[in-house]
Amino acid sequence: MNGAVDLPLGQAELSFEATGGSRVRRSVLPSGVRVLSEQVPGSRSATIGFWVAVGSRDEQHADASGPASLGSTHFLEHLLFKGTPSRTALDIAISFDAVGGEHNALTAKEYTCYYAKVQDRDLPMAITVLADMFTSSLLDPGEFETERGVILEELSMAGDDPADVANERFFQAVLGAHPLGRPIGGNTGTIQAATRGAVAEHYRANYRPQDLVVSVAGAVDHDELIAELGRALTAGGWNLDEPGEPVARRAILPAALAPGQPLTVVERPTEQVNLLLGAPALVATDERRVTMSVLNAIFGSGMSSRLFQQIRERRGLAYSVYSFAPAYSDAGLFGMYAGCAPAKAGTVALLMREELDRLARDGVTADELRRAAGQLAGASALALEDSDTRMSRLGRSELTLGEFVDLDEALRRVARVTVDDVQALASDLAAQPFSLVAVGAIDESAFTGAADQLAPSTDVA
Amino acid sequence: MNGAVDLPLGQAELSFEATGGSRVRRSVLPSGVRVLSEQVPGSRSATIGFWVAVGSRDEQHADASGPASLGSTHFLEHLLFKGTPSRTALDIAISFDAVGGEHNALTAKEYTCYYAKVQDRDLPMAITVLADMFTSSLLDPGEFETERGVILEELSMAGDDPADVANERFFQAVLGAHPLGRPIGGNTGTIQAATRGAVAEHYRANYRPQDLVVSVAGAVDHDELIAELGRALTAGGWNLDEPGEPVARRAILPAALAPGQPLTVVERPTEQVNLLLGAPALVATDERRVTMSVLNAIFGSGMSSRLFQQIRERRGLAYSVYSFAPAYSDAGLFGMYAGCAPAKAGTVALLMREELDRLARDGVTADELRRAAGQLAGASALALEDSDTRMSRLGRSELTLGEFVDLDEALRRVARVTVDDVQALASDLAAQPFSLVAVGAIDESAFTGAADQLAPSTDVA
Repeated sequence: MNGAVDLPLGQAELSFEATGGSRVRRSVLPSGVRVLSEQVPGSRSATIGFWVAVGSRDEQHADASGPASLGSTHFLEHLLFKGTPSRTALDIAISFDAVGGEHNALTAKEYTCYYAKVQDRDLPMAITVLADMFTSSLLDPGEFETERGVILEELSMAGDDPADVANERFFQAVLGAHPLGRPIGGNTGTIQAATRGAVAEHYRANYRPQDLVVSVAGAVDHDELIAELGRALTAGGWNLDEPGEPVARRAILPAALAPGQPLTVVERPTEQVNLLLGAPALVATDERRVTMSVLNAIFGSGMSSRLFQQIRERRGLAYSVYSFAPAYSDAGLFGMYAGCAPAKAGTVALLMREELDRLARDGVTADELRRAAGQLAGASALALEDSDTRMSRLGRSELTLGEFVDLDEALRRVARVTVDDVQALASDLAAQPFSLVAVGAIDESAFTGAADQLAPSTDVA
Repeated sequence: MNGAVDLPLGQAELSFEATGGSRVRRSVLPSGVRVLSEQVPGSRSATIGFWVAVGSRDEQHADASGPASLGSTHFLEHLLFKGTPSRTALDIAISFDAVGGEHNALTAKEYTCYYAKVQDRDLPMAITVLADMFTSSLLDPGEFETERGVILEELSMAGDDPADVANERFFQAVLGAHPLGRPIGGNTGTIQAATRGAVAEHYRANYRPQDLVVSVAGAVDHDELIAELGRALTAGGWNLDEPGEPVARRAILPAALAPGQPLTVVERPTEQVNLLLGAPALVATDERRVTMSVLNAIFGSGMSSRLFQQIRERRGLAYSVYSFAPAYSDAGLFGMYAGCAPAKAGTVALLMREELDRLARDGVTADELRRAAGQLAGASALALEDSDTRMSRLGRSELTLGEFVDLDEALRRVARVTVDDVQALASDLAAQPFSLVAVGAIDESAFTGAADQLAPSTDVA
């Protein structure tokens, strides 16, 4: 089978072959736990992830009924490494370090993932330790206070990175009050105010059998995985015989967004200005996502892309310049980034805007389209050599899309994108209300002359 | 063969099997070009690198005879992407982008490497384009001026990253006037002053057949590689029939270093202080390098390491904390890093110093030694799944060590390290003159009370 496979929440067993001869298997256990594996021939290692479909967007703002829990998802992620009744934090660290494994976790806006990459023989250990962390975290009050300090330092580190700051402000500027507009980790104030009770409540409510998705790629046998995982979750106190339904996937309707903030300037005494210019775009399940991949490849991904050629190669105005298009369940963004000298910030912002308008007005060539297809095919093939990428693809297929799209099928979809599709999407993007974010040693006057041109053009569509 | 293999400059052909069944072959062509390949069974992609043993340390300071060429190695690296008589910069970019390949280059202190990762079928293209770039760069005067702007932006970007700034200042503080103490990319002044003539002279002098090392790992056939490379270098105007001897490897004698700068404070309005504390350590060919790997694993690599446990896990003083030990032909360093709050910088610096002194005084346990061996074995096995790592290992073996050390042999060497070896090395380190670098919102008074304790202890050895 090389194609797209639906992943219905109610179907107990699925098995199919994917591109390159790997075997994908999926089991929905009676308790609601979902387990996906991709056995890759010849692989000697495996990457495993424990996922829940809960991220920073699901946190609550402060209201009359209680304090804000902003940052609690990320706080909980840290605490899961801090010990269980059977393992101290040091024991957990030693388990992975002693075999040279990688282990870490990722809090995103719509999910949280705890993962490890180990040699094949160490996979049972990884299953056991991750299951213990997931089911049996102590959330020890002393560790809670120590970790508060660590998280405050993590926030400070991000706050010292001007590109990070620009990125967070860009999400806020484009998405406004939408929960996806908030930073993932909360802020100094919410972390200083965080209570163990709020984090514990988050853990209790969202780390249940029906929330858990486990995905493994590489050297993995699905039946052994199910057996090991069952043992480990049971040892953690879970009753896997108690029936449960997996939690439903998120609604996929695009949210109504308030108009974004047109201009945000964060004054900082840095050498470069970090510039981001962009607008609302496509949600994750939009059929035009494949067109967006092609558009982004042509427009702002790689050294041959239009942005790179115009801003770096022809004019030498930036070292780093690219476009990007993150997508979520009910909102998405399109953005252009450049780091440049303060005196050139207005020029660079205008050039980025003009390139997008040119794409909307004149479209792309058949040659560019062919190259973009080759770029996406080659980059995907290289990425799938790594079990990390396959594990993530499995997890995100289950958590968000509800569909596993094989590489061959993905490339067939790319091949169906036309020059008209790309131009139509570019025109839609160019007509959106744009937000500009600049972090650096400038003030708003740097963009005075540019304000009109940066706004949506009416003559391009 | 699983072991260590000498790579004599005068030996025309070598072939041996390495761990995991890969085959390594090495040819020294009559012209002096050296070609190394590692064919990995089952691989569908390849990483290729073109190397020269020339880096920023080889540049000349300004003197009466002419301007400084600091940064010219890195400037040349950029220019090689900017076109040849048969390929424009855009052609070069398109070649790799159109197949989804990765291509880039790296200027280091002692070498420069141009590399690409592609699917197996695209390897002939990568050989052809990299050979064209290497042999036939135009160094076009217009492109030279445009690229000057790009490089200035790259320097600005690094200058805005406080951890980057701390790292550069750390090398200067420990190594003083030694050429390895200089930043790789030059500085704004030297790049503004750079002339095309100086860069062209660098190209002419150091990119000859006898300088070139090509290494490829993954899906590669050595004989086809030799044939393709010969065609491509000849097309670039090289006469491969003209006999040449590969350039000799660098001298490996440790340099005499002047005492380092004890305290460097760079005041910046950042949230964190980026702290580095360290001293001169081992050169790349020192027999104790394997002991250093073990020491570093125990002391400052991974979540179970002593630094991580003391500073992050027990006290919550930092998010990022680790140790590192870069080594070069005639000098090396040992360093400890932490990012922390300004008010805690003195405490954290003392804690790092105390941990090293404790290692020197009390040594390590047999259990820590066993875990470090497991950590190095597992991490190496995972890293070698990637053809990037194998390509780099081949190149560095040829350029610097003159020896290919197989994974099994490397692990046998690790297994021979004793607790006494680690303690002896820790004692040597602790007795060195230490340098402290702090970048952040503090001044020297933050370390007033700590100065004596940060200096080398006399009671630990």
